[in-house]
Amino acid sequence: MLTLAQLFDRTVRHHRGRPAVVDGDNRLSWAELGERVAVAAGVLGELGLGTGRRFAIQAPNSPRFDELKWAGFRAGAVPVPVNWRLAAPEIEHILRDAECETIFVASEFLPVYDAPALAPWRDKLICLTGEAPEGMAHYDDLFAGASAAGITPTAAGDDAILQYTGGTTGRSKGVRISSTNVISSQLGFAMGLRARPDDVYLHLAPMFHSADLLAMAWTLVGGAHAYLPAFTPAAFLECVARNQVTSTIAVPTMLMMTLGDPAFEKADLSSLRLLGWGASPMDPEWVRRVAKAFPDIDISNCYGLTETAPDLTLFEPDELRRAIAEDDPAVASVGKPNAIVRLRVVDEAGNDVAEGASGELLARGPNITHGYLNLPELTKTALADGWLHTGDVARIDERGYVYLLDRVKDMIVSGGENVYSSEVEGALYTHPGVHECAVIGLPDDTYGEIVTAVVVPTADTDLDADTLIAHCRPLIAGFKLPRRIEFVETLPKSAMGKILKTDLRARTKN
Amino acid sequence: MLTLAQLFDRTVRHHRGRPAVVDGDNRLSWAELGERVAVAAGVLGELGLGTGRRFAIQAPNSPRFDELKWAGFRAGAVPVPVNWRLAAPEIEHILRDAECETIFVASEFLPVYDAPALAPWRDKLICLTGEAPEGMAHYDDLFAGASAAGITPTAAGDDAILQYTGGTTGRSKGVRISSTNVISSQLGFAMGLRARPDDVYLHLAPMFHSADLLAMAWTLVGGAHAYLPAFTPAAFLECVARNQVTSTIAVPTMLMMTLGDPAFEKADLSSLRLLGWGASPMDPEWVRRVAKAFPDIDISNCYGLTETAPDLTLFEPDELRRAIAEDDPAVASVGKPNAIVRLRVVDEAGNDVAEGASGELLARGPNITHGYLNLPELTKTALADGWLHTGDVARIDERGYVYLLDRVKDMIVSGGENVYSSEVEGALYTHPGVHECAVIGLPDDTYGEIVTAVVVPTADTDLDADTLIAHCRPLIAGFKLPRRIEFVETLPKSAMGKILKTDLRARTKN
Repeated sequence: MLTLAQLFDRTVRHHRGRPAVVDGDNRLSWAELGERVAVAAGVLGELGLGTGRRFAIQAPNSPRFDELKWAGFRAGAVPVPVNWRLAAPEIEHILRDAECETIFVASEFLPVYDAPALAPWRDKLICLTGEAPEGMAHYDDLFAGASAAGITPTAAGDDAILQYTGGTTGRSKGVRISSTNVISSQLGFAMGLRARPDDVYLHLAPMFHSADLLAMAWTLVGGAHAYLPAFTPAAFLECVARNQVTSTIAVPTMLMMTLGDPAFEKADLSSLRLLGWGASPMDPEWVRRVAKAFPDIDISNCYGLTETAPDLTLFEPDELRRAIAEDDPAVASVGKPNAIVRLRVVDEAGNDVAEGASGELLARGPNITHGYLNLPELTKTALADGWLHTGDVARIDERGYVYLLDRVKDMIVSGGENVYSSEVEGALYTHPGVHECAVIGLPDDTYGEIVTAVVVPTADTDLDADTLIAHCRPLIAGFKLPRRIEFVETLPKSAMGKILKTDLRARTKN
Repeated sequence: MLTLAQLFDRTVRHHRGRPAVVDGDNRLSWAELGERVAVAAGVLGELGLGTGRRFAIQAPNSPRFDELKWAGFRAGAVPVPVNWRLAAPEIEHILRDAECETIFVASEFLPVYDAPALAPWRDKLICLTGEAPEGMAHYDDLFAGASAAGITPTAAGDDAILQYTGGTTGRSKGVRISSTNVISSQLGFAMGLRARPDDVYLHLAPMFHSADLLAMAWTLVGGAHAYLPAFTPAAFLECVARNQVTSTIAVPTMLMMTLGDPAFEKADLSSLRLLGWGASPMDPEWVRRVAKAFPDIDISNCYGLTETAPDLTLFEPDELRRAIAEDDPAVASVGKPNAIVRLRVVDEAGNDVAEGASGELLARGPNITHGYLNLPELTKTALADGWLHTGDVARIDERGYVYLLDRVKDMIVSGGENVYSSEVEGALYTHPGVHECAVIGLPDDTYGEIVTAVVVPTADTDLDADTLIAHCRPLIAGFKLPRRIEFVETLPKSAMGKILKTDLRARTKN
């Protein structure tokens, strides 16, 4: 397999004159980007960032972010994208854990470094974009003084990028991802989505997240890249029109917000040919709304983890349209396993369940991480017997469709019965008065846990708990019905729009 | 990576109701084919063909051929396709070298087993199709008495299929090809050609040849398979119409014959969306003729070897159309390296040549064989330093286009200058009186070798050597001009339509 640095050079060579960056007035051909990346690798070299050395990038989505990642691969160094929503102690943990000697920061994220916890890192900061404070080096100046560097040889199985995950609850873990992990995963993705050299792919989800590795499918085929620094529905729609974006992968929340925004009706989305989503499952009702709102383009759905670099399954566009048209229950699935992975569903004892039954999803393939940085015990558990334990409860039907039921830790056991929160949420969502909801288990002396729903009603709705329970009664079994319903104005969410059930459980305790 | 057996089961599961075999009235869904293959694996199990055991298949293209290959993968046994054009001693060499205990033969190829050389193998024959002679087992009977077998576990890097190559000159070599070799190669191919589940792929080239591994790209995506047992232009055209074939990869000779056939004008080829070719380069003049004859579909071109399972490069359809439209010299190339391989061009000392210069082409990647059966020394040479030495002289331009100039052993050294026979042939082909030609070097006391052209003139042409040399003079350097031209009625060719220059040299000796 190639390394990511070799893959990049291959794309530069094969697509020299074609656009690589389409970012408003900032347009670069692959040849021009190739030259910039070679110089950026020279910058890293002068900073001593050679083979295996790690450096942090904390920036909004931008061509500059990608340039530094590619420069890292070229220099043999390992980029460490940092979630800019994290608090100072969380950032400190990542920088220390990864032994980052250099941190490239966009100027808007500098204030967090005033925190005492980050004091030891202040002299390692390099301003990536915006104005550098007095005494701080700026990337542009280093770039101006550097010369092009060639590829520092690495192996395709070496760490290429370190992606921190799970930072919202407990200590975040650094997932070690190799060139082989990313390329093998993205070959299947590019095939399934028919990525093309004339595509313009929009980096919509935050680039610090592993979902951004999906963009590699377009680098693979020589497509161009556009970047949205900060999501709002209006900014997203404007960015698509301005850069003639053809393809993007969103987080469901982004799509839901966009469809509900008044700007949507007036937006020019004529360039779009593919709209995908991942990172968390979307309720079938919403899938139908998206399909209706975008009747003439490919829509698609994928699932994966940071540990799978990043995708495991894909709902191919033709199949998803067919499923919607035929009212196939598979609309609730995340599609089928991609061509390079094997999936198994096992019970608590680790034995394969019967076809169609639910249990923990295990995965194996060339896209799976070889482990977590500095966490040998966790690595051993997560990759026991060579299978990645995803922590997701899933079932796979006889056709291969994968249905995510819950996180193993979010599954509710009430009166001895397993209740999958997603199933209860699905029932709640069919009521027009439910804007958003989350179902959690709360401790109960009699039942062990009781099913509890936290609901954000739609505006101008006079919804009460009894009405909602009566609505759900014909849809799900009695033991799955919420025993308690709380109405709230918002739900706690991660930077990726995932509802934080741990926070919700803590907050909703009686 | 999955094994081929796992990949097959994945396709069966994901595409159950879709067509797998489209062969006139014989139509099977993936579910039906899956059931047949499981029983066929049971047949192999009862014959003792378990893990790593090799068995031969000698048959024309048919669903039965594929069924047996898949059954082999499922049983953990290794199918050995046998070129049915070989003479008895050549077949004997393969069967002995591969230690085949069982040989599945179509009845029409049984007569060769009357030869004394094949006497020891007569009691190992099983009649695959047609009438079995007295006393010989028939596959259908074994199949009727067998029960379904599961997958015998193997590793993705184990031998999956043994493909003999080079049987036309000297002893043929068994190339050991693993599941990883085939799947990694075909992921890139399926991506580049945008293979689809609603495709019907026609097995046009003989299935004993490694080119048939290209069909795996369609198995990967759940497309259907059609089969042409014996090529004639009329049979090919009729097969496309009858089975609504959408995609096929041909050998250039087949295309040239088809375009020249009177049946072509009247044929219904409306189902076709992709026509590719490989196995040997096609002259640019012919590429343009094919493009003109098929103006509305994807055309594509690939290059590879049995040792690369089988492709190294691909000329993607959009790029090929662009190159033709712009009169780009890249039309003479075999496209660009696929996403999983690295290519180098080296001089005789093994050093990389300057960009654009010519030399031997080396290749490295997950699709490359780990060696030849029973030939450790040859394996060591062919894979020296981890790079496959292709034996092809090539150059790669600044955009990544790969141009095949010659086989290393076919290159002519005349008066100290390197002459690539393909270049001289290209010049000859621009003369309308040249139907086919081959350029070889013949020993000469003064020049070392002299450039010699063997030409098949088009019908009704009164072509002479002086005219042809005068025609070539403005096109190529003086030292490349043929010193001698022979006119013949036909050129010696292999089963795949490759001109056999070794035979030609022997035959043309003064």
